[in-house]
Amino acid sequence: MIIICKPEATEQQIAHIEEAIRHWGLKTHISRGVERTIIGVIGPEDVIREKPLAAFPGVSSVTPVMKPYKLTSFDFTHKRTVIDVNGVKIGDEKKIVLMSGPCSVESREQILEIAKIVKKTGASVLRGGAFKPRTSPYTFQGLGVEGLKLLAEAREATGMPVITELMDTKDTAAVAEYADIIQIGARNMQNFSLLKEVGRCKKPVMLKRGMAATIKDVLLSAEYILSEGNMNVMLCERGIRTFETYTRNTLDLSAVPALKKESHLPVIVDPTHGAGHRDLIPAMALAAVAAGADGIMLEVHNDPEAALSDGEQALLPEKFAQIVKQMRAVAVAIGKEM
Amino acid sequence: MIIICKPEATEQQIAHIEEAIRHWGLKTHISRGVERTIIGVIGPEDVIREKPLAAFPGVSSVTPVMKPYKLTSFDFTHKRTVIDVNGVKIGDEKKIVLMSGPCSVESREQILEIAKIVKKTGASVLRGGAFKPRTSPYTFQGLGVEGLKLLAEAREATGMPVITELMDTKDTAAVAEYADIIQIGARNMQNFSLLKEVGRCKKPVMLKRGMAATIKDVLLSAEYILSEGNMNVMLCERGIRTFETYTRNTLDLSAVPALKKESHLPVIVDPTHGAGHRDLIPAMALAAVAAGADGIMLEVHNDPEAALSDGEQALLPEKFAQIVKQMRAVAVAIGKEM
Amino acid sequence: MIIICKPEATEQQIAHIEEAIRHWGLKTHISRGVERTIIGVIGPEDVIREKPLAAFPGVSSVTPVMKPYKLTSFDFTHKRTVIDVNGVKIGDEKKIVLMSGPCSVESREQILEIAKIVKKTGASVLRGGAFKPRTSPYTFQGLGVEGLKLLAEAREATGMPVITELMDTKDTAAVAEYADIIQIGARNMQNFSLLKEVGRCKKPVMLKRGMAATIKDVLLSAEYILSEGNMNVMLCERGIRTFETYTRNTLDLSAVPALKKESHLPVIVDPTHGAGHRDLIPAMALAAVAAGADGIMLEVHNDPEAALSDGEQALLPEKFAQIVKQMRAVAVAIGKEM
Amino acid sequence: MIIICKPEATEQQIAHIEEAIRHWGLKTHISRGVERTIIGVIGPEDVIREKPLAAFPGVSSVTPVMKPYKLTSFDFTHKRTVIDVNGVKIGDEKKIVLMSGPCSVESREQILEIAKIVKKTGASVLRGGAFKPRTSPYTFQGLGVEGLKLLAEAREATGMPVITELMDTKDTAAVAEYADIIQIGARNMQNFSLLKEVGRCKKPVMLKRGMAATIKDVLLSAEYILSEGNMNVMLCERGIRTFETYTRNTLDLSAVPALKKESHLPVIVDPTHGAGHRDLIPAMALAAVAAGADGIMLEVHNDPEAALSDGEQALLPEKFAQIVKQMRAVAVAIGKEM
Repeated sequence: MIIICKPEATEQQIAHIEEAIRHWGLKTHISRGVERTIIGVIGPEDVIREKPLAAFPGVSSVTPVMKPYKLTSFDFTHKRTVIDVNGVKIGDEKKIVLMSGPCSVESREQILEIAKIVKKTGASVLRGGAFKPRTSPYTFQGLGVEGLKLLAEAREATGMPVITELMDTKDTAAVAEYADIIQIGARNMQNFSLLKEVGRCKKPVMLKRGMAATIKDVLLSAEYILSEGNMNVMLCERGIRTFETYTRNTLDLSAVPALKKESHLPVIVDPTHGAGHRDLIPAMALAAVAAGADGIMLEVHNDPEAALSDGEQALLPEKFAQIVKQMRAVAVAIGKEM
Repeated sequence: MIIICKPEATEQQIAHIEEAIRHWGLKTHISRGVERTIIGVIGPEDVIREKPLAAFPGVSSVTPVMKPYKLTSFDFTHKRTVIDVNGVKIGDEKKIVLMSGPCSVESREQILEIAKIVKKTGASVLRGGAFKPRTSPYTFQGLGVEGLKLLAEAREATGMPVITELMDTKDTAAVAEYADIIQIGARNMQNFSLLKEVGRCKKPVMLKRGMAATIKDVLLSAEYILSEGNMNVMLCERGIRTFETYTRNTLDLSAVPALKKESHLPVIVDPTHGAGHRDLIPAMALAAVAAGADGIMLEVHNDPEAALSDGEQALLPEKFAQIVKQMRAVAVAIGKEM
Repeated sequence: MIIICKPEATEQQIAHIEEAIRHWGLKTHISRGVERTIIGVIGPEDVIREKPLAAFPGVSSVTPVMKPYKLTSFDFTHKRTVIDVNGVKIGDEKKIVLMSGPCSVESREQILEIAKIVKKTGASVLRGGAFKPRTSPYTFQGLGVEGLKLLAEAREATGMPVITELMDTKDTAAVAEYADIIQIGARNMQNFSLLKEVGRCKKPVMLKRGMAATIKDVLLSAEYILSEGNMNVMLCERGIRTFETYTRNTLDLSAVPALKKESHLPVIVDPTHGAGHRDLIPAMALAAVAAGADGIMLEVHNDPEAALSDGEQALLPEKFAQIVKQMRAVAVAIGKEM
Repeated sequence: MIIICKPEATEQQIAHIEEAIRHWGLKTHISRGVERTIIGVIGPEDVIREKPLAAFPGVSSVTPVMKPYKLTSFDFTHKRTVIDVNGVKIGDEKKIVLMSGPCSVESREQILEIAKIVKKTGASVLRGGAFKPRTSPYTFQGLGVEGLKLLAEAREATGMPVITELMDTKDTAAVAEYADIIQIGARNMQNFSLLKEVGRCKKPVMLKRGMAATIKDVLLSAEYILSEGNMNVMLCERGIRTFETYTRNTLDLSAVPALKKESHLPVIVDPTHGAGHRDLIPAMALAAVAAGADGIMLEVHNDPEAALSDGEQALLPEKFAQIVKQMRAVAVAIGKEM
């Protein structure tokens, strides 16, 4: 922690700050410049990270030296985390995972048919929403537990592990019973009760970046899960909210190298929600592979005109097959496979 | 709903769209321009709001005519909602409510002392966090139920109703037992399970705007609460996330007239979180009053250097008293009182 | 300047950084923590502000201690700048200036009539665009020099000094000949050639905040003008671009106390462009006064339906008169007049 | 144009709107719903695009049907524009162009050496700034005309055409004399005087997206250039300003497919400014190729520690060579070459 004092800070104020720091069990290192005094804090920064140093008279600014996340940090493991989900390895340096399926589970026929299509085309994880976070209360809210059961059935039929969203701590047991990967959606990225809850689960978790979340925020939310004992966390970039209205969100692909630089956790990209327009998804899926994503999540629907949610951004099976082929070529170009 | 077709849309595609609309029980009204065909949908828009019209071949764009929120809309009541909380009226056209207290409940002494200070200075509602949503898992997470009990004690001591945050559906009963107003924080604004749950409560709710939430998003989240039967909802502007880093968030005061134009619900402003710097709070508090807020929420602490959360943005009692005096003068200038 | 080294920085890398700093004529102050080494740079920071220290191996981050702006800084004058424009004082602590007029000068009759209306209602500066920065090339681009002459005529008729926008260095002489205050628009806030040019002028300048400009960016753009010798600069908040689409821009009123804290220059607020909807302007104008603005700029039109630009956001004369009355009451409430 | 009336709009107000539209030479098409009346405007939308329809009583909202840009639109040409710059084809469907060089021209030795390096590695266009738009007036502002001459010398030495930035209409002749492609920087994207000026030039222009510019804004700025007669325009995505501070800007790669869908103009990506950190540039360069960019601009410096601007984001020659190799592999994977 480096404390930069105001030019007009008095000796008394500086002494008061030093005293507080020593009181918290740390040492100080004073550097008096011509215009300003700088106080370096020596010792474990965690002890004073949450102290309101900026509230002390004479303080101009406080700069942390250490990162606020620990278990999430690449420095904690010095090697990349690979998560094994029923034999599917997520985070493998050489192999990109494809997660696919409909936005929502709508019926037995729908999920079984789409599951078979995406499996055949190359997906190794099946996605499908049973509990749906919808902006409006008047739109389809998902089939709930019934949807979870249908997902489990689709897993039986195809052998693919299943990822689905958990929205409420009350549903944790149900979702953990049926799902292989628990998804925490963008809108719940800072639902800290939910994060702690899945931290106590043994199931792998995919944490989606919130619409207003910085890279640091994402890592701190992941830290909530890891600090409860669950190290099987993958992060997911799905677009942030910006002034641009042409796309539904702005897919921030620089988050891929940034998160992989800061953390050991696998990084998935969801181009479907990032783009929000079917026309833009192929280019963004290819770009996500090239940017170094460990996995790609794509929504597919066999009958988008009849979809109960987000039909306008679902890919048709043929288009999906074509993109998968192209993604595989790009994967090979960067020394991986898909 | 107005559907603008692509210039190259075929007659067959247009017929297919019309057919779908009729199939959903609505009528169409076709207008063929030189370059484009426009399809007006006649009948209740709700029926097709969630249909994936943009997924139909030949569709260029879809523009809704009706607003997606209903109960929340000013058009629903044609008069402003006034919420009575133990005799304190929130939303009264002539009287601005002051909600104040510490960021977190830290101890019996702390909450009782601050409650007395803010009561004496003019607050009529006491705020204080018992469950705290903190970005990092390593910072103070609140006293929980113990904090709720201390708030209830402070209510007994001062007569002020109490507002506190609910973060998890599991804690609903506990929070509803002790609090007079349930706060839904910015990070949970789209935690739809929580919104439905407080919608089924009988307690008044204050819904804070999420950091990436548009005016429309706020109103749709409120709609979740109202549609479950709880009409006692107030909205709270507390700053949105923008590129500006000088302030913690960007307090969007235009949200006050915008929300009051669109909705009948009272609008509160929280300048503390919007500004994030003690120096900027007074100006923003005065501006919030002038912008037409029904209530102002301000954090006060008697010993900010020792605060367990957000001490750097808490006002000292003397500064608080000074701002309250100025806010009262501005209130009178616009024909209200505080 | 404080340089935080990477945990893995070698002694050789640290020595290399120190050597470079000494080579640039400054001293270093090393603090070796358990995990990281921190290098403090002692001496005038300007010398190395533009050195690519982050490009040196072993450097994790570089934190400046000094502010990058000087002449613009409050610390440079330690008193507020008051600009005298033909007897109208802008920046006076007790008196708020009202600048008003149409978006564009459209004709002699139009500008003379509106000038008389706003003068009578209380404006002391007349605004009107002759060179118009329009998003589309197919919309009205202003009357150019002819518009400047009409503005000068309106000044003769009313005695009000005139503010108008300069968009091109080629037009500097013409604009400086007719205008009393030169406006640099939001889109040209980082047109550094234009800033230098008006810096060499003797005329007062109003610099509008760019749509993506931080507080620091605004002050650095002002520094361009001041550093060329023109100290008569006022800053103008007119809304920033955010994800919100309900308003045209998001008026960031916290910029008023922020800019006044950092700088000695007067701060004007333009609620017309910030809100973009006539319905929201009154509330934002009152809030701007309460937030401490030194001046308010409001667009007025006597026939908005026939306006050649931005008619939808211009106030009608009666509405304008009503807002002025309310702004005056708020001004008095905070110890000023208008 | 579709005008949605307010629910409370009177017959008189609707008649007044219709009358105005007919007065402007267009026809109306009225559709009366149960709750609202909708007025369709039939005829060339351009005529009324700038009319302040929202200022008419009874109007709730105005939705354009036609796009506001014409010459820029893909619909105008129905084929992709290929720009020939001294034999280098930009916009070719099969060949991605690499533009490279230092941020600023610093000296004869520097520019000649870097030019030779990038040429050898695979660049076909040389970049280098002579007029530099710098946030602070106290940093290196470029060598000006001297820099232009050195660029011309480097062109002679390597055969590569040269791209450099024009910041001021006054320098147009000088820049046009020496440069092969004129760059309009992000900060001048809405400097409409400058856009018109380069529109009257015969030289190819690269227009960089502004930090707060939407896709539509970019296309309208391009329209300024095309409407003056210069069709040789390429667009450049270089990152937008968002709340994220980890990266210097947020590189919006979805702009590549979006701009190519809307327009016939070539699209270049500049990962250097988008990322702002040397570590993130390789991933973003590969992603830009995969997203479908027609060209990639990368800054290279042989001695970043001594660079006069942006040294921290310049690539070293070896790293550059490595990225070029990878970009070529990705190009081949998507059926192109580089």
